[in-house]
Amino acid sequence: MKIAVDTMGGDQGLLATVKGSIDAVEELGVNVILIGDQKAIKDELFRNGYTGERIEIINAEEFITNDEEPAMAIRRKKKSSMVIGLNLVKDKEADAFVSSGSTGALLTGGLLIVKRIKGIDRAALAIPYPTKKGISLLLDAGANTDCKAKYLQQFAIMGSIYAEKVFNISNPKVSLVNIGTEEGKGNELAKEAFNMLKNTNINFIGNIEARDIPKGESDVLICDGFVGNVILKLTEGLAMTIFSMLKEEFMSSFTSKIGALLLKSSFKDFKARLDYTEYGGALLLGTKGVVIKAHGSSDAKAIKNAIRQAKIFVENEIIEKIEEHISVLEDKCDIEEKL
Amino acid sequence: MKIAVDTMGGDQGLLATVKGSIDAVEELGVNVILIGDQKAIKDELFRNGYTGERIEIINAEEFITNDEEPAMAIRRKKKSSMVIGLNLVKDKEADAFVSSGSTGALLTGGLLIVKRIKGIDRAALAIPYPTKKGISLLLDAGANTDCKAKYLQQFAIMGSIYAEKVFNISNPKVSLVNIGTEEGKGNELAKEAFNMLKNTNINFIGNIEARDIPKGESDVLICDGFVGNVILKLTEGLAMTIFSMLKEEFMSSFTSKIGALLLKSSFKDFKARLDYTEYGGALLLGTKGVVIKAHGSSDAKAIKNAIRQAKIFVENEIIEKIEEHISVLEDKCDIEEKL
Repeated sequence: MKIAVDTMGGDQGLLATVKGSIDAVEELGVNVILIGDQKAIKDELFRNGYTGERIEIINAEEFITNDEEPAMAIRRKKKSSMVIGLNLVKDKEADAFVSSGSTGALLTGGLLIVKRIKGIDRAALAIPYPTKKGISLLLDAGANTDCKAKYLQQFAIMGSIYAEKVFNISNPKVSLVNIGTEEGKGNELAKEAFNMLKNTNINFIGNIEARDIPKGESDVLICDGFVGNVILKLTEGLAMTIFSMLKEEFMSSFTSKIGALLLKSSFKDFKARLDYTEYGGALLLGTKGVVIKAHGSSDAKAIKNAIRQAKIFVENEIIEKIEEHISVLEDKCDIEEKL
Repeated sequence: MKIAVDTMGGDQGLLATVKGSIDAVEELGVNVILIGDQKAIKDELFRNGYTGERIEIINAEEFITNDEEPAMAIRRKKKSSMVIGLNLVKDKEADAFVSSGSTGALLTGGLLIVKRIKGIDRAALAIPYPTKKGISLLLDAGANTDCKAKYLQQFAIMGSIYAEKVFNISNPKVSLVNIGTEEGKGNELAKEAFNMLKNTNINFIGNIEARDIPKGESDVLICDGFVGNVILKLTEGLAMTIFSMLKEEFMSSFTSKIGALLLKSSFKDFKARLDYTEYGGALLLGTKGVVIKAHGSSDAKAIKNAIRQAKIFVENEIIEKIEEHISVLEDKCDIEEKL
C-alpha cells in the first residue's frame, strides 16, 4: 500500500511529515510517497538516518498557502504538492493522500480532482471528536455550510460505515445534533433529517443535545458543516480557556502552586485524553479516493496516526462499502417513488 | 418598582424563590409579588422570618410543567403562576416577571401575552455567557431555530443596547458567530447578516469563530437560535465533562489526591467564575415587558441576581431605547426603499 504525504504545509512542515512517515513505514508496513522540495526531503531523510527503499520522493515546485482562495489555487497551481498528491490518488498511483495544508484547498481539490462517489451529493469533513468515553465521529465538521436533509442522511450512512470499520464499533450509534431530544425539535433541516434518518438502515438513536456530546454516548454525530465547525472550534477554544484559567488560579497562592505541582502528571494524562494527535486527521468522506486532512499543527506522531487511519480506511474498502449502501438507498428511493 | 416572581418551577422551587426574593427586597430596594400556592408561600416567608410589607402574594391554582406543549399550556392554564405573572407585566401591574419554569412556555407566553415591540420581528433569548474576561451576551440562545438575516440585525441592535445599559459597557463590540473571520465566510444566513450588520449603527467588529468565544473579546455574540443553543449547551456539557475527567485523574493516585486537596479553593474560585448564578437569568429580548428566565436549577442567589437584572433593565428603560433605535432603522429602510 502506498500513501502519499504532502510535506509542504502545517506548522511543523517538513520535519514532522518526514519523521512521521519514517515511523509509519517502519511500524505500519506501508510505503510512502513524500511530495515537496526534493532536496530538502532527501536531507531530512538523511538526517533521520533513513536509508530504506520504502519511501519515494516526488518533487513539487509550488505550494498552496492558507491564504489563497481554494478553487483558484487548485486550478492554477498544477505543480503544487497538494495538486500532485490529489492526482496520485485519482490516478490510483497512491492509495491515499495525507496533507496538513490548507483545509479549504484540500476540500475543494478533493472534490475537483478526486471527485465524489456516485450517489453522494456532498462530501463531508469527518473528524474524530475526543469524549469522556473515547471518540465519536463528527460530520460534517465544516465542508458544507448549507445542507439539505438528504445530505445529512448520506453523511449518516458514510459515518456509520466509517465508525464500524475504522473505530471497530459494531452497529455504531448515530445521532442527529439538535436542540432537544424529542422528535419534532429543531430547525426545519433537523426536523426533515430526523424523519429521513429514522427510515434509514443504520442504528439511528435520535437527537442529541450539544450538552451530551462530550459524554461520548453516541458514536457518530450528524450535523451541517456550520454547526459542526462551531462544535469543533468551541471545544478547542473552551478546553484551552479552561486550562489557562485553571493555571491562573493555581498560580495565585503558595499552597495551590504545590497542589498544581503534585497534579502535574494527572494534568498531562488528562490532556493526552483530549489530544487530537492520537486520533489521526480529518477525513474528506464521500470522495472516490482517501484524502486526509492532518491538523495544521501536526507533529510526527499525528502524521503517523493520520497514515495509520488512511491504511485502515483502504484495507477496509470503505469507499466500496459506501458505494454499495448508497446504491441500495437509491434503488429503494426509486421503488418508493414508483409505488 | 415591582417585580413578579414565579414560585412554581425550577428544581429548588418555592424555597429558592422566597429566600431570593426576601434578599432582593432587602438588598435591592425593590418590591416583589410572589405568585404560587398562597399558603405555602406564607409559611415559607414565616420560616424565613420575613414580616415586612414589600412582598405581596398572588395565589395561583395551576402550574405549567416542563413536559407540556408550550402554546397549549399557555392558552389553557389561565390560572397558572406563569400566565398570571405574564399578565401582570402586560397590564403594567408589575415591571418585570422572573420565572425558573419551562423555557418553552415562558418564551411562547412572552410572545402571546406580553407581545413584541413594534418593529421587532422576533424576540430572542439573550444569555449572559461567562468568558475569561467577564461576560458576553449571547443571542439568540434558542428562541428562533430558523432565522432571516434581518432578525439577526434586530438581535444585534437589541443586544448592543442591553450590553451598554445592563453590563455598563460603552460602545459594546458586536460580533457575528461564524466559521471564519473574513467577510464572505459562512452559510447564506451569515453572509447576508454580515452585509446588513456592517451597515447598522452599532459597533460591529465582524465575524467571530467559536474558538474565540470563550476568550471574551466580543461583548455581544449574534447567531440564530439553533447555533446559539448548541453553543450554550456544549459549553455546559464540556465544562462538566472536563471537571469530571479531572476529578477522575486526581483520584487516581495518593500524590494527586493531596494535590487536589491543596487546590480545592482554587477550583472553587474557578467554578465561581463560570457560575451562571452570578449573572442572573436569560432574557426574552424584544417583548414589550421584561421577562426573565432564571436557570432551572436556580438557588436563592440566582433568583436575587435575576431580580437585580430585571431592576437594571427597567431602570434603564431598555425597551423604550430599543423602540427608538428600531424606529430609526425602519425610517432609514423606508428612505432607502424610496431612493
